[in-house]
Amino acid sequence: MWTTDHDLAIIEPRIVELVRELTDAPATGAVAAALRPVMDQVVEQAVASSEGGKRLRALLTLAAFDALRADTAADSAATPVDSADPERASMADLACAIEVFQTAALVHDDIIDESDLRRGKPSAHRALEHAVHSGVIGRGLGLMLGDILATACIEIARRASQGLDNAASIDEAFLTMQREVEIGQVLDLGVEMTPLDDPEALADASLNVFRWKTASYTTIAPLLFAFLAAGFAPERARAHALAIGGPLGIAFQLADDLLDVIGSSRNTGKPVGGDIREGKRTVLLADALAGARADEREELIAMFTESHRSEEQVARAIALFESTGAIERSRARIGSLWRESRTAIAALGLPEERERRLSDACARFVPESMR
Amino acid sequence: MWTTDHDLAIIEPRIVELVRELTDAPATGAVAAALRPVMDQVVEQAVASSEGGKRLRALLTLAAFDALRADTAADSAATPVDSADPERASMADLACAIEVFQTAALVHDDIIDESDLRRGKPSAHRALEHAVHSGVIGRGLGLMLGDILATACIEIARRASQGLDNAASIDEAFLTMQREVEIGQVLDLGVEMTPLDDPEALADASLNVFRWKTASYTTIAPLLFAFLAAGFAPERARAHALAIGGPLGIAFQLADDLLDVIGSSRNTGKPVGGDIREGKRTVLLADALAGARADEREELIAMFTESHRSEEQVARAIALFESTGAIERSRARIGSLWRESRTAIAALGLPEERERRLSDACARFVPESMR
Repeated sequence: MWTTDHDLAIIEPRIVELVRELTDAPATGAVAAALRPVMDQVVEQAVASSEGGKRLRALLTLAAFDALRADTAADSAATPVDSADPERASMADLACAIEVFQTAALVHDDIIDESDLRRGKPSAHRALEHAVHSGVIGRGLGLMLGDILATACIEIARRASQGLDNAASIDEAFLTMQREVEIGQVLDLGVEMTPLDDPEALADASLNVFRWKTASYTTIAPLLFAFLAAGFAPERARAHALAIGGPLGIAFQLADDLLDVIGSSRNTGKPVGGDIREGKRTVLLADALAGARADEREELIAMFTESHRSEEQVARAIALFESTGAIERSRARIGSLWRESRTAIAALGLPEERERRLSDACARFVPESMR
Repeated sequence: MWTTDHDLAIIEPRIVELVRELTDAPATGAVAAALRPVMDQVVEQAVASSEGGKRLRALLTLAAFDALRADTAADSAATPVDSADPERASMADLACAIEVFQTAALVHDDIIDESDLRRGKPSAHRALEHAVHSGVIGRGLGLMLGDILATACIEIARRASQGLDNAASIDEAFLTMQREVEIGQVLDLGVEMTPLDDPEALADASLNVFRWKTASYTTIAPLLFAFLAAGFAPERARAHALAIGGPLGIAFQLADDLLDVIGSSRNTGKPVGGDIREGKRTVLLADALAGARADEREELIAMFTESHRSEEQVARAIALFESTGAIERSRARIGSLWRESRTAIAALGLPEERERRLSDACARFVPESMR
């Protein structure tokens, strides 16, 4: 059985190789000498922006494929050699395609949010602004870099699917995934315009955004690709991937938002309350508004209607998230969603060892203390 | 034989139908009630932004397919009924996909150029800023609308190719086209940073941008889709499409830039010199710089280095474009490229009537007075 370290060693260099090929001009024509420098800057930024991800989605794609496929190579192989397993090599490329798509989405996300940093380094558009000494042109290049990566990942997926079962369904699923995330981004912008005086509607809207913007490509699509490539009929593959991946992906995002408030057990030293500082409308905020007394609710609404929040306000908001039961409610939501996902895994009726492997791969998306 | 009016009557409603389906959330999930309004605003803007194009690319795709395919339905059909010709219906959808791609590219183009207008109406991001009463959110929605349309056109093309010969090559060609245009946009931003003191390098760079940003999707891809769907072997299809479409697409863009300076024979009342007013670095400018006396060259460089140009300066630039021979040189370039394209059409060795039809379809991209 392959380890995630083994898979990371396959994925990381392959992402760089694919990004380098597919963000540069194709061999169908030449690039004028005077324009080569700007093209090189964009390709180098594409590679830089592709680095540093945890590759959770790629790892789930491969682990789920190993657990699901009828073929027993994954069980028996003592020395994993991908060259002897062309299907798994195609699956690894499909896994890379999801990661490249995430990079594309983050590049545009950072332009929309006007973020200066990403994964501890300058965001793509900021790096390009700096490289070309022009805000307008650098931002334009950043926008185009996102476009180029979004096209590149589809070509990576298209080539990969040709070596897999259900190729046409995989192609369609990849495009549906991309569309779902884009729709999710639209809805996320919509949440920012949702009034704070109806906490139930706000919680519904936020959870809905998690479905589209996060669960889509984090859990549903990786599982769907695995089911399809493992030979499940498309309708059945979609039903299982949604039943397992839907609640799992929402639990993942809820846990991420919760860790932002209560801090990670790994004690990364990252300051807590980042989402509150930015004034993000989260499920935690909605739950706090729903559980608050009238005066506390007014206090929270006033705080989140201002353009900035002080450190005292961030601390006060966290205290209210705790005292109103919002934090406990998020824990309960996460636990319940995880059980829903587990039940859907069990419903597959896989042999015990395969079910355990699929379940373990899914469990990585929810911190142990919240399961 | 089908007329362009007949084809437009097929294409226009089909674009609306496809855009409406593929820019909305897919049936894989529900949209929360509170977020439905923002989703509707984006879908309506997608439809609005799709309207008003001349559909030159879609018409070339269909006309070239009719001229090239071995099947003789297009010759004999007195009453064209696409339902009896599923291949042509697929081809019409592929033609729509190119138009939807153009809309996607224009939406992002207008964000990069900060354009307020497109086809006489507010640009997509401006319309969305207005609709949601927020510059930041509206611009974010505009950026996402471009992303959604770019994904949508690939799904339209993917579905269409399934009913055509060489489906995998068509899918690949569509993604290559999209990548070429995105690369072209990067190079176009690069031209804005190219110094004005080397006119030959500037002309080379501008012509190179025309290859990537315009010829790619205006002429090369429509012809390539037609060759592939008509059953040509992929390598041969690519060679012919490049040989005919490369020079044709560059001639088209040169003619467009020239009409911007000398005005259209149709006397549309559109003010001339728009590109000069915006300070665009064009082949005309490069040719003027190359043909100018030292003092005229300094005058032009000073003019195009400023942030704005007055009406007197625009008129003076046009006079210099004329007196330096730049306008004549563009005419010569266009004529020579058109002859190159014609020679490549003749090299196909088609029966006379088919060759004439393909040549007529291509000729629409170059004004008669410049051929």
